[in-house]
Amino acid sequence: MKIEGRNAVYELIKTDREIDKVLVQADLKDDASRRLLSALRGKKVKIQFVDKRVIEKESASKRHQGFIAFVSDYEYSEIEQLTAAAADGGIILVLNEIMDPHNLGSIIRVCECSGAAGIVIGKDRSAAVTDTVMRVSAGAANHVKVARVTNVNAAIDELKAAGFWVYGLETGGEDIYKSDLTGKLALVIGGEDSGVKRLTREKCDKIISIPMFGKVNSLNASVACGIAVYEAVRQRLKDGL
Amino acid sequence: MKIEGRNAVYELIKTDREIDKVLVQADLKDDASRRLLSALRGKKVKIQFVDKRVIEKESASKRHQGFIAFVSDYEYSEIEQLTAAAADGGIILVLNEIMDPHNLGSIIRVCECSGAAGIVIGKDRSAAVTDTVMRVSAGAANHVKVARVTNVNAAIDELKAAGFWVYGLETGGEDIYKSDLTGKLALVIGGEDSGVKRLTREKCDKIISIPMFGKVNSLNASVACGIAVYEAVRQRLKDGL
Repeated sequence: MKIEGRNAVYELIKTDREIDKVLVQADLKDDASRRLLSALRGKKVKIQFVDKRVIEKESASKRHQGFIAFVSDYEYSEIEQLTAAAADGGIILVLNEIMDPHNLGSIIRVCECSGAAGIVIGKDRSAAVTDTVMRVSAGAANHVKVARVTNVNAAIDELKAAGFWVYGLETGGEDIYKSDLTGKLALVIGGEDSGVKRLTREKCDKIISIPMFGKVNSLNASVACGIAVYEAVRQRLKDGL
Repeated sequence: MKIEGRNAVYELIKTDREIDKVLVQADLKDDASRRLLSALRGKKVKIQFVDKRVIEKESASKRHQGFIAFVSDYEYSEIEQLTAAAADGGIILVLNEIMDPHNLGSIIRVCECSGAAGIVIGKDRSAAVTDTVMRVSAGAANHVKVARVTNVNAAIDELKAAGFWVYGLETGGEDIYKSDLTGKLALVIGGEDSGVKRLTREKCDKIISIPMFGKVNSLNASVACGIAVYEAVRQRLKDGL
């Protein structure tokens, strides 16, 4: 959803609503624009400076005054809601810089189908649950809890404190088919390019890997997520859960 | 790769090279254009009539004369090469109208990582191995055999004759975790919207399903493919293969 114009964007940042980003026309020099820009910076909102033509094209109302904020209709959850939902041996997914909205949408579908308790995403360098993601998720986003946290590594500490085993899905670890994936499990999925980041990897209790038999050996992030989550589901089914 | 202009397209159709489609400017009335159009129809090439502006935008050379052919640098395999590669109990994927190039690219990556023998795709209503797919596949397409067939149902008959069990991945079938997926296996994956088509489904020896625990219960086609293929891999690993 787009919110356009100086006043509307000013009102928006007074609320607690999540803002995906604000497009700002790059060549604005007037005082009112400068004041709003400074307020946006104060709120640590993601700002993207663009050419006037870009903002004209994005504008639905044509009354943008050089500012268009993108907000999602999606309501995020708290991490405590996820841990409560997974308290009986459920699965929580932790996404480490998944930036492609199509991958996030696909992962939300994996979460919904598999009965996993929810997804943790970071505020920075991560796709948010935007309108595009809602669409790609084929409606699944309406049934999946996503917690958006400032710091994924701190969230992992919270999950550990709540009794979850934290396993990173990455190459070079223990074969997923030889790992016990039952019990309270937080599965960390790395981003499209760089996989699970070093600091995050060091926080994991274990690294687990999908066995590979090719030369390139690179799976799409959402496909890898689906394979690992469903192996955890299979082990639960086998246990009669 | 694009091949532009009447003569170049005329030379192209004399070869055996696979043509993804030919864009043709809709308002051409001259004799030379009509002759080429009739030759294209004779070769059963996929023709897409478009506005002059569209063809101008697609043209790299600006000497298109109203004709731009799209060909892939990818070299397709014969179905016999796939069955030979899978003769020792391997896996062949049969795609039933997967139209999204991103899904095809992801499925090619699944095939490469899992060591499956190759992929069968149809000529109609299916994504071909275009430059986009090559890019999405992250290089995996260079190591995966894809056979492009006129009729997927006829290909299934060939696979059956070669001793493959043909299982369709679709809702309402036998749980993949209770199905024996070892041996020579052809796994049929349905398209994004309609799943495995009725006639194709009737050709399958069995329908198998990923267990679902949500309300929407819809997985992305490439994710579903990854989960099922890797369950077949897991069963093979367990058997010590």
